Amino acid sequence: MSDTKFPPENNLPAGYQPPKVWTWEGANGGQFASINRPIAGPTHDKDLPVGKHGLQLYSLATPNGQKVTILLEELLEAGIKDADYDAWLITIGKGDQFGSGFVDVNPNSKIPALMDHKPKDGGEPVRLFESGSILVYLAEKFGAFLPTDARARAEVMNWLFWQMGSAPFVGGGFGHFYAYAPMKIEYAINRYAMETKRQMDVLNRQLADNAYVAGSEYSIADMAIWPWYGRLALDQSYPDAGTFLATHEYAHVVRWAKEIASRPGVKRGIVVNKASGDPGTFLAERHDASDFNGLTI
Amino acid sequence: MSDTKFPPENNLPAGYQPPKVWTWEGANGGQFASINRPIAGPTHDKDLPVGKHGLQLYSLATPNGQKVTILLEELLEAGIKDADYDAWLITIGKGDQFGSGFVDVNPNSKIPALMDHKPKDGGEPVRLFESGSILVYLAEKFGAFLPTDARARAEVMNWLFWQMGSAPFVGGGFGHFYAYAPMKIEYAINRYAMETKRQMDVLNRQLADNAYVAGSEYSIADMAIWPWYGRLALDQSYPDAGTFLATHEYAHVVRWAKEIASRPGVKRGIVVNKASGDPGTFLAERHDASDFNGLTI
Repeated sequence: MSDTKFPPENNLPAGYQPPKVWTWEGANGGQFASINRPIAGPTHDKDLPVGKHGLQLYSLATPNGQKVTILLEELLEAGIKDADYDAWLITIGKGDQFGSGFVDVNPNSKIPALMDHKPKDGGEPVRLFESGSILVYLAEKFGAFLPTDARARAEVMNWLFWQMGSAPFVGGGFGHFYAYAPMKIEYAINRYAMETKRQMDVLNRQLADNAYVAGSEYSIADMAIWPWYGRLALDQSYPDAGTFLATHEYAHVVRWAKEIASRPGVKRGIVVNKASGDPGTFLAERHDASDFNGLTI
Repeated sequence: MSDTKFPPENNLPAGYQPPKVWTWEGANGGQFASINRPIAGPTHDKDLPVGKHGLQLYSLATPNGQKVTILLEELLEAGIKDADYDAWLITIGKGDQFGSGFVDVNPNSKIPALMDHKPKDGGEPVRLFESGSILVYLAEKFGAFLPTDARARAEVMNWLFWQMGSAPFVGGGFGHFYAYAPMKIEYAINRYAMETKRQMDVLNRQLADNAYVAGSEYSIADMAIWPWYGRLALDQSYPDAGTFLATHEYAHVVRWAKEIASRPGVKRGIVVNKASGDPGTFLAERHDASDFNGLTI
């Protein structure tokens, strides 16, 4: 599209005009082709491993992955033994998410993905993808961390969906342009810094009046929101982002984030499916509660 | 952050360096301050109107707004009379979403927002925000468009959450940088065009094997996905985007999009809460089924 109001000399780079038809080659996309592609589907045949538990998780300890391992460890912490699970490492840098077995569970080729081989009704296995869908499924299956009262349940769902629709502006937007893109683009950094700060302020106002995000009870809304916004408040996400976004100003988010971080289930959940780190501080795979024995977490 | 691998002369504009601490003034954010702000909360006192029905919708006919009006009209089309509703226009260009009454329903200041004054349990009203949360609530309340079988329900939820986490890359990413940003930024357009095409291909592969997105049954997953991806497939979203993204190549999405578009509930749903258009083709507000009489839709 051409536009007289916005002359092409202001484009970046100056004079750039989008082509009529976008092409992968024209976008020089081959460079990161191992991870980012304009096409879906498997790139190679590979079955997924299956362990001893009903729940088989295929994931990586990114914020979206941590949501699920936090919930699973919180369920176990609450004494719900049927929530025991096998967690297998999906190394996205190596393209594990494009293996045929993984794509069969999640056609979107993103972590986390979960198979439930022992659903409550005794029927065929259930496939689950998208962290929000997994959280709702597990909370409903085990009757925990999702209230049944209509108002309280709606509030948890409101905030859970808020996280799913908002965090792409933080991770895919702010984090990408601030920390990962191969050049700093002023317009994009400003756009996403503004939105990230607005979202932090939404949370800060909510947590000024409530112990937890969805009210007085700890829920899957907290577990979904903490790995993104809690860690940002604690300056544990992108380098120098705490200073850049002045996250200390969101005092209620900081208060809440510290409290969540101190929970035993959270401490265990966040180190599952880490691909690297100091020896004895993480689990690349998790198959049994005893796997945590001797770890420093 | 400075980075020797990516020298600042490659930044956009050349030599740009992010400040240590981001500020609204430094980002020249005052320009669009009426809509985009780094802070949350109300800007002015204003109560919301309340009509005769239990369901009070406050919205605008954007893709996220249309999801909910499509579901409500589909429920009515299915003979569920209790789904009757009042739909009030929220003009986001005028800042209606920052009124105190609206913020009380949705602290995130985004449409759609819904109050249910007649919840099933007869208790206090339920507040709902985020389109995905509203869809789940209404589908569960009226027992429609969300299957109860564990596998079928999980699949609908998987795809509903997929939509919520994916569309920000289309609307907030591709649409913004391709159509709305004040300059064309090659890197950003390529980034989001690639991801939008990947998502379209995910859908295309799913719809090659299934009548509807989540399987053989029409569900809230279709209603969430169609306003974003169906309209993109039909080239009804951003100018020239159908050509740019070669959306005709996603033949299964096109087949499905046309079928959904022909449903009476969808035809009614998409014209509710439109702010402008040809006379007799839309409803800025909707309070009764008879409001559609005489419209050309």
